[in-house]
Amino acid sequence: MQDNRLSQQIQFIVEIDKLKGVLRQTLLTDSSRRENSAEHSWHLAMMAMLLIEYAPAPVNVLQVIKMLLIHDLVEIDAGDTFCYDVQGNLGKAEREKQAAARLFGQLPVEQGIELRSLWEEFEAQQTSEAQFATALDRLQPLLHNQQTAGGTWRIHGITLDKVIERMKPIKTGAPQLWTLVEQVLEESVNAGYLKPAP
Amino acid sequence: MQDNRLSQQIQFIVEIDKLKGVLRQTLLTDSSRRENSAEHSWHLAMMAMLLIEYAPAPVNVLQVIKMLLIHDLVEIDAGDTFCYDVQGNLGKAEREKQAAARLFGQLPVEQGIELRSLWEEFEAQQTSEAQFATALDRLQPLLHNQQTAGGTWRIHGITLDKVIERMKPIKTGAPQLWTLVEQVLEESVNAGYLKPAP
Repeated sequence: MQDNRLSQQIQFIVEIDKLKGVLRQTLLTDSSRRENSAEHSWHLAMMAMLLIEYAPAPVNVLQVIKMLLIHDLVEIDAGDTFCYDVQGNLGKAEREKQAAARLFGQLPVEQGIELRSLWEEFEAQQTSEAQFATALDRLQPLLHNQQTAGGTWRIHGITLDKVIERMKPIKTGAPQLWTLVEQVLEESVNAGYLKPAP
Repeated sequence: MQDNRLSQQIQFIVEIDKLKGVLRQTLLTDSSRRENSAEHSWHLAMMAMLLIEYAPAPVNVLQVIKMLLIHDLVEIDAGDTFCYDVQGNLGKAEREKQAAARLFGQLPVEQGIELRSLWEEFEAQQTSEAQFATALDRLQPLLHNQQTAGGTWRIHGITLDKVIERMKPIKTGAPQLWTLVEQVLEESVNAGYLKPAP
């Protein structure tokens, strides 16, 4: 390839194909297999398009979608860490920071900076865009667990109190959706999909 | 769920999870398995972010990304039709039209109309956004086939002339990338990944 800029961009596009091989704990809604982080990111971007009216403040939808498309890229190196795995989450921040440096460093400088700032904005949770994006990132596995008769909650014996704690960013990032969360949790406990708090 | 509007949106979000189970012919770059249409759509949306500077005219990147996120949804009902399968492509338009009616009809009316027009814009190929989106949709499997030593070209015995014909929308939608396409094709023929024209 003659053009070094285009060559870097294409290499990056090939590199990120690896995200399709990073498995999350979440099951697909038909329980057939675990979800990978690439298709998860697509699902969240779709949710952003569809649910943008529930953002707590006027948000830039393009910024939200871009953030969701790239938010899990660091897992290519750092792997997906199960949210309820206390031990596994200990070194997570450092692992992901190194991954960000390597991955975004492959791009033409200003594009690398743009993607890295998007990722840092998502991680920092200070903007309405980042908070809304995170709300969706929490809501989606809730829906999957509901659809799969408890899914990862059952597999890992997660209790209601832990899930409520995990869902809390929805109160900030998409407060109008909190009633839905409560309803899904109540139905899930009643159906035996989720253990009540101990 | 009390709120009928939110209920329709959530049902749609659950419904489109099925796109993760629609398999394309394309292999992942590590050849481990076939790609599904949800992760493919994510990859294309990422490519739009990264390659927008190669669009032939100033384009609305949000519109391009939205179009790419939803462009394959109709495959939930209609299935993925292999681009080189002449027979399979005969009833494709009608199957996909029916799928669009069913799927987008599940959303609150104005959202259903928005998504359907995005899909129709993509299909009609009249705007720069739709043409650029299609260019990416053709470029991505080219890169995958290159990475997998011929991938679906080899599996199905596709020849160079057929691939050049298939890649043509890149000339319109992202003309600056045509040199890259020619280079990849030349290298692929030389490496024995792709049969020369008969």
